[in-house]
Amino acid sequence: MRRSMHRPVRFGFVLLLLLSLGRFAAAADETVPALLGFSAERSAAERALEKKLDAALDREDQKAWMKRLTAHPHHIGSEYDRQNSLFIADLFRSWGFTTRIEDFYPLFPTPKERVLELIAPTRFQPTLSEPPVPGDASSAQSAEMLPPFNAYSIDGDVTGELVYVNYGIPDDYEQLERRGIDVAGKIVIARYGHSWRGIKPKVAAEHGAIGCILYSDPADDGYGVGDVYPKGGWRNDRAVQRGSVADGPLHSGDPLTPGVGATKDAQRLDRKDAKTITKIPVLPISYGDALPFLKALDGPVVPPDWRGALPIAYHFGPGPAKVHLKLVFDWKLTPIHDVIAVLPGAELPDEWVIRGNHYDAWVHGALDPISGMVAVLSEAKAIGALAKDGWRPRRTLVYAAWDAEEPGLLGSVEWAETHADELRAKAIAYVNSDSNSRGYLGIRGSSSLEAMINDVARDVVDPEKSVSVWTRARATALIDGTAEEKREARDRPNLRIGPLGSGSDYTPFIQHLGIAALDLGYGGEEQYGQYHTAYDNFEHFSRFVDPDFAYGVILAQTGGRTVLRLAEADVLPFEFTGSADTISKYVDEVTKLADDLRDKAVEENLRIDDGSYALTFDPKETHVVPKRQEAVPYLNFAPLRNSLAALQASARAYSKAVTARAAAGKPLSTEERAELDRLLIGTERALTRPEGLPGRPWFVHQIDAPGFYTGYGAKTLPAVREAIEQKKWDAAARGVDTVAAAVSAYAAQIDRAAATLAK
Amino acid sequence: MRRSMHRPVRFGFVLLLLLSLGRFAAAADETVPALLGFSAERSAAERALEKKLDAALDREDQKAWMKRLTAHPHHIGSEYDRQNSLFIADLFRSWGFTTRIEDFYPLFPTPKERVLELIAPTRFQPTLSEPPVPGDASSAQSAEMLPPFNAYSIDGDVTGELVYVNYGIPDDYEQLERRGIDVAGKIVIARYGHSWRGIKPKVAAEHGAIGCILYSDPADDGYGVGDVYPKGGWRNDRAVQRGSVADGPLHSGDPLTPGVGATKDAQRLDRKDAKTITKIPVLPISYGDALPFLKALDGPVVPPDWRGALPIAYHFGPGPAKVHLKLVFDWKLTPIHDVIAVLPGAELPDEWVIRGNHYDAWVHGALDPISGMVAVLSEAKAIGALAKDGWRPRRTLVYAAWDAEEPGLLGSVEWAETHADELRAKAIAYVNSDSNSRGYLGIRGSSSLEAMINDVARDVVDPEKSVSVWTRARATALIDGTAEEKREARDRPNLRIGPLGSGSDYTPFIQHLGIAALDLGYGGEEQYGQYHTAYDNFEHFSRFVDPDFAYGVILAQTGGRTVLRLAEADVLPFEFTGSADTISKYVDEVTKLADDLRDKAVEENLRIDDGSYALTFDPKETHVVPKRQEAVPYLNFAPLRNSLAALQASARAYSKAVTARAAAGKPLSTEERAELDRLLIGTERALTRPEGLPGRPWFVHQIDAPGFYTGYGAKTLPAVREAIEQKKWDAAARGVDTVAAAVSAYAAQIDRAAATLAK
Repeated sequence: MRRSMHRPVRFGFVLLLLLSLGRFAAAADETVPALLGFSAERSAAERALEKKLDAALDREDQKAWMKRLTAHPHHIGSEYDRQNSLFIADLFRSWGFTTRIEDFYPLFPTPKERVLELIAPTRFQPTLSEPPVPGDASSAQSAEMLPPFNAYSIDGDVTGELVYVNYGIPDDYEQLERRGIDVAGKIVIARYGHSWRGIKPKVAAEHGAIGCILYSDPADDGYGVGDVYPKGGWRNDRAVQRGSVADGPLHSGDPLTPGVGATKDAQRLDRKDAKTITKIPVLPISYGDALPFLKALDGPVVPPDWRGALPIAYHFGPGPAKVHLKLVFDWKLTPIHDVIAVLPGAELPDEWVIRGNHYDAWVHGALDPISGMVAVLSEAKAIGALAKDGWRPRRTLVYAAWDAEEPGLLGSVEWAETHADELRAKAIAYVNSDSNSRGYLGIRGSSSLEAMINDVARDVVDPEKSVSVWTRARATALIDGTAEEKREARDRPNLRIGPLGSGSDYTPFIQHLGIAALDLGYGGEEQYGQYHTAYDNFEHFSRFVDPDFAYGVILAQTGGRTVLRLAEADVLPFEFTGSADTISKYVDEVTKLADDLRDKAVEENLRIDDGSYALTFDPKETHVVPKRQEAVPYLNFAPLRNSLAALQASARAYSKAVTARAAAGKPLSTEERAELDRLLIGTERALTRPEGLPGRPWFVHQIDAPGFYTGYGAKTLPAVREAIEQKKWDAAARGVDTVAAAVSAYAAQIDRAAATLAK
Repeated sequence: MRRSMHRPVRFGFVLLLLLSLGRFAAAADETVPALLGFSAERSAAERALEKKLDAALDREDQKAWMKRLTAHPHHIGSEYDRQNSLFIADLFRSWGFTTRIEDFYPLFPTPKERVLELIAPTRFQPTLSEPPVPGDASSAQSAEMLPPFNAYSIDGDVTGELVYVNYGIPDDYEQLERRGIDVAGKIVIARYGHSWRGIKPKVAAEHGAIGCILYSDPADDGYGVGDVYPKGGWRNDRAVQRGSVADGPLHSGDPLTPGVGATKDAQRLDRKDAKTITKIPVLPISYGDALPFLKALDGPVVPPDWRGALPIAYHFGPGPAKVHLKLVFDWKLTPIHDVIAVLPGAELPDEWVIRGNHYDAWVHGALDPISGMVAVLSEAKAIGALAKDGWRPRRTLVYAAWDAEEPGLLGSVEWAETHADELRAKAIAYVNSDSNSRGYLGIRGSSSLEAMINDVARDVVDPEKSVSVWTRARATALIDGTAEEKREARDRPNLRIGPLGSGSDYTPFIQHLGIAALDLGYGGEEQYGQYHTAYDNFEHFSRFVDPDFAYGVILAQTGGRTVLRLAEADVLPFEFTGSADTISKYVDEVTKLADDLRDKAVEENLRIDDGSYALTFDPKETHVVPKRQEAVPYLNFAPLRNSLAALQASARAYSKAVTARAAAGKPLSTEERAELDRLLIGTERALTRPEGLPGRPWFVHQIDAPGFYTGYGAKTLPAVREAIEQKKWDAAARGVDTVAAAVSAYAAQIDRAAATLAK
């Protein structure tokens, strides 16, 4: 369910150490540097293996599998979803993987009744449906589709005046307050975008709204961006974005079994006690259906950044538009089927490299998620071929095809919760993908994997430009980046990889279990706009996304290299100077955030006190002078800075230790390797705290988390950053201590790894 | 024809001198400071006079006059325009002014034939008309209106493919070039805005286009801003912006008589030699009419900042839309009638304070220009009443009601050219207004009048907020200003007044003759969007602009005070430390402009050289790598800095001389006053150079000019700034010398004035 396809990668300053040290040995062939974690000799062998992998990839496979997997709607609980699980499991088996299907039984509501009507000042009945489109046979399979709805909306039957709340994020409600508009007792209509969708009903309910309509404004992914389907690929006036509205930032997975696997006999919460189900009913509609509702609003005209692309003057309301919304769901437990395929490691079988992508979709899901799934399958088939040739991975490979990601990462979360102890002990890293498209490599993940994944990106060739995908990703930063991003792109040897928020299956691994993770995918040149609609299907994909699967092939190359290097390295390819640099950047950011808030409060209070607001309010309109802001105290960031200094020293020392060990010509024994791996695996774990984040203990990682009010968007150093954003100064001070403790623990664990190398 | 109603004023640092010195004497009443240029005693008398002025102002007058003047369409050449001239002249006469009507005979084309049609891929005939609107009787007077057209479009009959060029300014053609789109031989469609309209066909023709359609996108003043007429005041789908498209930045006024008055027997150019008539035919249309044309375009989708608010994906073209445009005009000389009303000065009759507003309109012109005209009439009536009471102004007042401003400032320019010598000798200042509305005081003009007009603004009370209009104008800068503007608003004692570009009748005075000028008007809270349409009429004005003429009354107070203080001061209220500060800001700006261009060229060339552009171009689209940029040399700004240093010293010395003279208790004799006034009048003249600006000798002012590629928007230090913008480095160097010479001459003239005071 990952939303944004085009995530430009970022760069920054990193010690030059990274290029000169941190590799196991100088390359035998001076023109090709040795891979991180490999000796020169083993590096050459690894590259040869990767060449064989490339040769085994076939775009025709991907096309055929996509056709097969998207031939019918295959949402969670559907018969075709179950058949897909069997089909995928059979493929893995045929390639030599030890394959099993693990079932779980999460709560999954489906709509029994959806009523939405405009009842004043005129009456209007929206279609609430997506009609077939000429030339698109898939879109005619209406009978097999779930209708447009938001999963985990509560049941409800409400009637009230309508208020337009823009994107429905906290800033928007501040604006409403300043115009004297209260949503209490009202139904809000919010446009999709600028936050994960589940944030919108959550914030609306916090402000007393009784119902919530979501719609896709054409400004955001319709004709405001490009030609609409079927002329172009962008959203047409009837396409509706489905999706979960559970409060994912509280915890991911099944609402009834937080923290434990939703096995058949798991202890379940009563539904009324489930915390992630919405407080008010929510329904998504198309912009064709939304227009009459928005047109019927009066009240003040909205400010420019609230305007969408519909041909009307947008008004706030409330009213005279009055709306009736009734939703009834079938709240049943639904079996889901994770496909788990294992290729055991020859030397270190209890060390797992996990690679995953989900296969369930809201409808056909050609792009989301099958474009990613078929690339993973392609990669697994090629690896299977290597194994059939006699090769065995040094460490164990686990391939996962997750079911039920769309409603809330159910497949991955329930599996990870079920196997938590084993995963904490054995998992080296989790490598995710979800959707894939024509364009640029996007990488997010654990910063300790930055150097390794940069090496991978330097070795994969872009099919459109015949340069490395690394060079092309760097070029976007140079063209579209901010001044800071351009500077990084020029000066930093590695692409800085972005932090993980949420929205795909890496979340249980990194944020709940503290397993290093990566999320990979290409994109930026597609015409999408069909996210979670009935038109994200093979017909659309083969015209507007990645028609010849060229990027499907290189995602398989990218994922395949990543998995193989993690499995085959002499020393696990973790690198920490880049990580220290990235955490240092986050510390600078939260410091600046507090400073900026302080300046803003001073400035705002000046304007309130000198009467400037009152003097500029048009007396023919309602305006409310904002409340005076509390002064922002200076916070003690010293613990964070001290822990960071320790980390920087540890990171440098570890790099030196790697180089020294290589220079000493003392290869690691299997026992030493197992010991070192155990310590390195523990580095990411060290970044977690058992008590979790304030108010949401399921999330234990102290560097990356989904924002409590952004959902998909990551908040780094969340215990500090969100406390500052929410002006909870005591919590921010506690957050500084917690994060500093995690960073110190990370540094200490890196020191232990370095000490092992020095033995 | 002034476009923007809401021009936020700006502030900046000025020496505190301004408040402590520069006044003739400390006030008698310590709580009310003496007025600039007045002794304490005379200051009290002046304030008493102004109170009487205020008492004589009557909003009912303004309402009645607006009804009378807008009862019928009254464009140049119409019978009702002539009747309005007689009506206005009679009013002035009845108030005791010596009044005459001066006629001129400029070229004014009116449409004989207007054909516009979409001929491929489908056919469409636009309406090219503005229908009556329910509840708006004025809009039903179609028979008396000129249809929508652009004055000084050339005749033409062209057929070609259509290209959308956004606002049609030079930057937009750069974007087209980068997408490989050539407009040569094509017809362009440009939206109004971001430049004076005449720039659009000029730039289109420079790029080889054969025709030009202008339209108003709803994003800019239609439903993209607010409710459309008649529900709200903004532009509806049939309202068309008329207006001149002559190349005004080359010279203003009659195209056939540049530099001389268009009297009956003036020597005229042959029409084919007239430089300001467009090179290609141009026609304006509504967004209702534009939609089918834009919808018929294909080719690449435009970038986000090119998108308007029509419910389509905007495409560049060219084609498949194909257009036929035929325009035939009646090219006749048309008599125009300037009303000139004089109240002779009792002491210094050969010193003129000129106050003007135009009265011709494109249709009814309630806002543009009658809202300003009736305020000026109100002001003149009140001054007439003072005179009837026995008071006489010390210096001569000249009130002008200009005809034919709309086609190109014809009334003011031809009058100023005819009386150029006398004006250069006698005119102290020209005070303009044009349109007026609810909201904030906007001031632009000669920086030497900054202190005086700030004093005026401090003495006029805003009818909505009961604070001075100065305080309210300052508040907008504090709320909406940039960081720099906010700093100025807090720290600078006076509002910094903006520079004059063009677009109203101040142009011939300041920019052609070097007479200090001001342009005054209120606005920012209206719902306009009917600029130059059939709906800018009394019905619209009294609902959406200034329903009770509260701002009409305070414009009369503002203009009246300005005129009276200029006429009555002991020492003309010119102040130069603020002027030096403002010119210093301009010098900083042009220096930064060169530096920024240099950085930009370096950055751009880096990206070209490292291949980043090529790497980020989608191979499915056409993109052209931009040309390498010429390196930007370091320019020698020293002559400008040296002249500025001299000016700063002279300005301080003059302020000191004023204070010293007052402290010495030696009032000026009439002869000394005449001598000092002559020198002060000469200060603005010193800022002109007889050779004029490069390529446009009609514009002689070296500080303020309309931009050659912006039209309305001012370009300060134009000989330097525009040369840098156009990358003409030799011309920029010459410009530095020319402007430095003007600034030095300004300083020397100020020195002479100071010396007179020291006698």
